Amino acid sequence: MTDKTTVKVIPLGGLGEIGKNTMAISCGDDIMLVDAGLGFPDEDMPGVDLVLPDLTYLIENQKQVKALTITHGHEDHIGGIPYLLKHVSVKDIYGPALALGILESKLKEFGLTGVTNLHKVHPRERVQIGCFNVEFVRCTHSIADSFSLVIRTPIGNIVHTGDFKFDFTPVDGELFDIATLTAAADEGILLLMSDSTNTEKAGFTPSEKTVWKKLSEVFANAQGRIIVTTFASNMHRIKQILQAAMQYDRQVVILGRSMLNIADLARQLGYMKYPDGLIINVDEVKELPADKVVILTTGSQGEPLSALTRIAHDSHKHIKVIPGDTVIFSATPIPGNERSVANTINALSLRGAHVIYGKDAGVHVSGHACQEEQKLMLNICQPKFFVPIHGEYRMLVKHTQIAHQCGVGVENTFVMENGDVLALTKDSGKMVEKVPAGIVLIDSSRAWEIDETILAERLEIVKDGAITIALTTNSDCSKLLSFDYTQKGLILTDSAEQIGKTIESEIKRVIEKYKQAADKKIHFQTYIHEAIKQFVQQKYEIKPLIQVILHQLSHAKDSVLS
Amino acid sequence: MTDKTTVKVIPLGGLGEIGKNTMAISCGDDIMLVDAGLGFPDEDMPGVDLVLPDLTYLIENQKQVKALTITHGHEDHIGGIPYLLKHVSVKDIYGPALALGILESKLKEFGLTGVTNLHKVHPRERVQIGCFNVEFVRCTHSIADSFSLVIRTPIGNIVHTGDFKFDFTPVDGELFDIATLTAAADEGILLLMSDSTNTEKAGFTPSEKTVWKKLSEVFANAQGRIIVTTFASNMHRIKQILQAAMQYDRQVVILGRSMLNIADLARQLGYMKYPDGLIINVDEVKELPADKVVILTTGSQGEPLSALTRIAHDSHKHIKVIPGDTVIFSATPIPGNERSVANTINALSLRGAHVIYGKDAGVHVSGHACQEEQKLMLNICQPKFFVPIHGEYRMLVKHTQIAHQCGVGVENTFVMENGDVLALTKDSGKMVEKVPAGIVLIDSSRAWEIDETILAERLEIVKDGAITIALTTNSDCSKLLSFDYTQKGLILTDSAEQIGKTIESEIKRVIEKYKQAADKKIHFQTYIHEAIKQFVQQKYEIKPLIQVILHQLSHAKDSVLS
Repeated sequence: MTDKTTVKVIPLGGLGEIGKNTMAISCGDDIMLVDAGLGFPDEDMPGVDLVLPDLTYLIENQKQVKALTITHGHEDHIGGIPYLLKHVSVKDIYGPALALGILESKLKEFGLTGVTNLHKVHPRERVQIGCFNVEFVRCTHSIADSFSLVIRTPIGNIVHTGDFKFDFTPVDGELFDIATLTAAADEGILLLMSDSTNTEKAGFTPSEKTVWKKLSEVFANAQGRIIVTTFASNMHRIKQILQAAMQYDRQVVILGRSMLNIADLARQLGYMKYPDGLIINVDEVKELPADKVVILTTGSQGEPLSALTRIAHDSHKHIKVIPGDTVIFSATPIPGNERSVANTINALSLRGAHVIYGKDAGVHVSGHACQEEQKLMLNICQPKFFVPIHGEYRMLVKHTQIAHQCGVGVENTFVMENGDVLALTKDSGKMVEKVPAGIVLIDSSRAWEIDETILAERLEIVKDGAITIALTTNSDCSKLLSFDYTQKGLILTDSAEQIGKTIESEIKRVIEKYKQAADKKIHFQTYIHEAIKQFVQQKYEIKPLIQVILHQLSHAKDSVLS
Repeated sequence: MTDKTTVKVIPLGGLGEIGKNTMAISCGDDIMLVDAGLGFPDEDMPGVDLVLPDLTYLIENQKQVKALTITHGHEDHIGGIPYLLKHVSVKDIYGPALALGILESKLKEFGLTGVTNLHKVHPRERVQIGCFNVEFVRCTHSIADSFSLVIRTPIGNIVHTGDFKFDFTPVDGELFDIATLTAAADEGILLLMSDSTNTEKAGFTPSEKTVWKKLSEVFANAQGRIIVTTFASNMHRIKQILQAAMQYDRQVVILGRSMLNIADLARQLGYMKYPDGLIINVDEVKELPADKVVILTTGSQGEPLSALTRIAHDSHKHIKVIPGDTVIFSATPIPGNERSVANTINALSLRGAHVIYGKDAGVHVSGHACQEEQKLMLNICQPKFFVPIHGEYRMLVKHTQIAHQCGVGVENTFVMENGDVLALTKDSGKMVEKVPAGIVLIDSSRAWEIDETILAERLEIVKDGAITIALTTNSDCSKLLSFDYTQKGLILTDSAEQIGKTIESEIKRVIEKYKQAADKKIHFQTYIHEAIKQFVQQKYEIKPLIQVILHQLSHAKDSVLS
C-alpha cells in the first residue's frame, strides 16, 4: 500500500470537457487534489443549473485525501469546493489570496465556514502535502493571482500549468515566473499536464493590454452611454474598464451580483484600486448626462436572467436602451452560447444601440495559451510524459500532436478522460484502470442533486407531450366505473375529447381482455399502461409520457356502483 | 386600388433571421413573390422541426397573387412552397431548372402535383407578372443555377440579389452575369435588396475552387477511408468531392436521403457528370480496401439522426469508425449548431479518426458575399433606395452601414423586419404599416402545425416537472372521497408519497374552505387548481404544471360512499 515508486494521476473533471476541473494525484497513502471546479449543463439537461464531478473515488479513499491545492479563483476551478467539502473531509486547502477570498464567502453561503483550513500561499512558496512537495509558480491568466504548480514527488517532478497564457505585458505587472519553471526543468520534469483550452488556435494569444487600445478609443469617441459586458471573473478586464471610465470622466454602475462581488473583493484585497464615488447606484444613472455613464454588466453569454439580456429585451427594471448607447461585448461566446449571444446583440441593435462585438473588434482577448504558447511551455519543461488537460477530446488530441512536434515521444503522451488512471514510474507510464467519473446534476436555486431519471422524464414529455388517464374500476378490475382523460403538450388533429373517447373504448376492450386472460401475473395497472402505450403509438404515431391513475373500489361498494 | 405609382415591398420571412426567405412585392392589383422558404426552430421550440412564415397577408390578398419567382433551389428559398400552395393559390411558378426539379419531387411528396404551373427560366429570360417584368440574371452561389432578379416596375427597377457571392472562377464555369446587372443599372435602379448573410465578415469570400487544393491534398495523402460531410444542398462541393474521388481512384457511398436525392437529380438534369459505378452501396464498402473508399454523408451540423452523428456515436447500422479514417467537415456550423458539431468531432476523435475541421482548415468556403462583394454589388447597382435582406437584425444594420459607405443616403436605407411594409414611389420611400408576420411551427414527421400554447405547456413541464391530482368528491363537492397523486420530472427532497399526503390534507382544507365560502362563483375545479398551485409554489418553491382530474359523484351514489 505504501509503494512510493508509482504516482497515479486521476482526473475527475476537466478532461474531455471544458469545466469542472478536478485532478487527483496519488502516491503511497497520499492523495492531493488540484482544483475542484464546477461545470455548466448541456442543452439536453433542462432545469439543470450546474454540473459537478462524481466524487466516489475520493469518498472511497477519504482517508488518503491530504489536501486541496487551488491554482486560481475561477468557478471552473473552485466552484465545486462546497460540494467537495460536503462529501469529503479535506483538512487543508492551499491557494492564492484572491481565490481564497472568493472561496471564503462561498463557504459562508453554504454554511461550511470552519470545516477546512484555508492557507494563503505566495509565489515560490513550497507546501508539503504527504509525500508531495508543491511549489506555487506565478503564471498569467485572465484573473489576478494565478498559479502553475511544480509538484515534487518521490519519482520526479510534475508540472500542472493551471490555466495560463504567456502575457508578457500583464495588466497587473505580475510576470510569468519562467525562472522557477526552468529551475524545476533543470531537475527534470517527469510529467507535464498543460491547459488545452485554446489548442485549436494557431499563434500567440495577445496580451490583455492590447484590449486597452480599442477600449480607450471607444471611450474617447462615444457620445452616449457606454454599456460594457464581460465575464464577472475576468478581473483584469474589469480593472481596465474602470480605468477607462476614470480616464474619460465617467461613473460606473455595476449590474449583476457576481460582478459586484468580485469588484468589491478585489478592491478589499488590494487587487484593484479605485476612488470612492467611481461606482454609483443604478438609480443615480438617470441623474447623470449620458456621456458620463458606464454600465458594467454581466450577461456576456446571453444568460436569460442577466442584466444585459433584460436590458436588451426591454425588461430591466431600471435601465432601458437609449438610441445612441454604445454596447461593448468584451468577451467571446463559450461554445453553445453563440445563439443566445447573437439574440442579445440583435435585440440591442433593434433598440438603436451601437454594438461592438466579434473577434475582429479588438475588445477581447483570451486568457488561455494558443499553440505557440503551448509549445513554449513544452520547450521550457521538456517533460518525459505529457497529459493534455482542460479541454474537450478533440482538443486533447490536438495538444498531444503539438507535444509530439516538440519532441515528446508518441508513446509518452496520454489522451485521458475523466476517471482514467495513469500510473507513472520513473521510466514508464500506463493507463491502468478506471474509477467512477460520472456527473452530478445540480438545480442550484435549490442546491438539489437531480436524478437522471427525472431528466429522462422531462425530456420524454418535451418530445411528445403527456397523457394522463384516471380510471375507477370495481374490486376485481373487471368493470370500468369511471374514466377521465387529460393531455398536455400533445399535437394531434383530433380534439382532446375525441382522443379521450377513443382511449376510453380501448380501455374497455383491454379490461375485457384482461378479464379473459388466464394468466394474471401482470399487475392490472401495468397491463393497462402497456396496452395504452402501444395503442397510442400505433394509432397516433406518438410516444407521449403516459400516466395511469387507477382507483380500485373495495368489495363493499361494488354492488352499488356496478 | 389600381394606383401604379406606388410599389410596396413586404418581406414575410428572412428579415431579422436566417431562413424562410419569402418576399412579396405589390403594385396596383398585382402581387408577385420572390422565394418561399422554410426555417429551422430555436432551442426553445422542443418538438418543432420546421418554421414557416405566417401567410395571412397573402391569404387575405389571394386574388392579387399573380406568381412566385424562385432564385435558387435551397430549402430556405423553396422549402415553404408546399405550405404556401396549401393556403394560397399560385397559378405560376418561375424558376431555374434545378430548383424546379427539386420542387417537383417535393410537390409529388405532398400530393400537390398539378396545382400550379412550373415554368423553367433561362439566364436573361424575361417574364411578365402583372405589371412586373422580371429578368433572371445568372449569379454565383453554392448551388448551381442560381439567379438574381431585375424586376422592372412602373416606377423603376428593383434588384433582388437572391443569395450570391462573386465567384470569379466558379466550379461550373457559369459566370456572374454582371453585364445584365450593369445594363439595368444604366436604366437606373430604384431599389436594391441584397443578401446580408455574411455582412459581419470583412473582405471577399474565396472562390469555391480554392477548396479543391486542400481537398485533393487530403485525398492524395489519406491512407485509410475518407469520410466527407457537407450540406446536401452544396452541389458545387459535392461535385468537387466526387471529382476528387475519381481522380484518386476511390468509390463513393452516399449516406443520407437528401444527399442522395440531390446527387441523383443533379446528374439527371446534367449539372453533374460521373460514370456509373462511381457510387456504390453501403454494403459494398466492406469489400473494398480502406484507401479505395469515400463516404459522403449528411450530418455536417451534428444533426442527431444524421448518418455521420450515428457513425460518430457508434450507432450506425453499417459504418463504424476505423482508426485511421480521415473525416473532413466541409461545412461550417450554422449559429446554434456549434455545440452539436463539436460533440460529433469529439466522438469521432475518441474513436481514432483524424478529423479535419474549422475555418482555417481550407476545406470550406461560404456561398455568400462578404463585405467587399456587398460593396461591389452596391457599386454596380448604385441604387436610390436600399433594403438589406436575408439576415438577422444586427447584420441588416451592418449592411446598411456598408450601403452608406457606398453612397446611399442614410434616409434611403431601410432596416425592415418581417411584416413591415415599405411604400416606394419614384422619389420617396416610407415604412407605412405592418402586416401579420408571425411564425407557424411544424412537426414535420406528421406535417402538423403546432400551437404555441402546446409549446408553452411543454416548456413549463421541462422547467419544473408536472403534478397530477385525481380526486373524487360527492355531488356537491363538500367531501373528498378518494385521492390520487402522481408526479413526473419533479425535484424535491421529499418522497412522492410524502408530497402526495401533504397535498391531500391541503385539499381537504381547501374543500372545507370552499364549502364555507358564501360566493361559489368560481368553479370548484378551478378553485382547487389555483389553491394547489399556490400551495406548491409556497411550500416547495417550484411551479410545476398542475393537472387536476375531478370526478364528482352523482347524487344517487352519495349516501353509499360518504
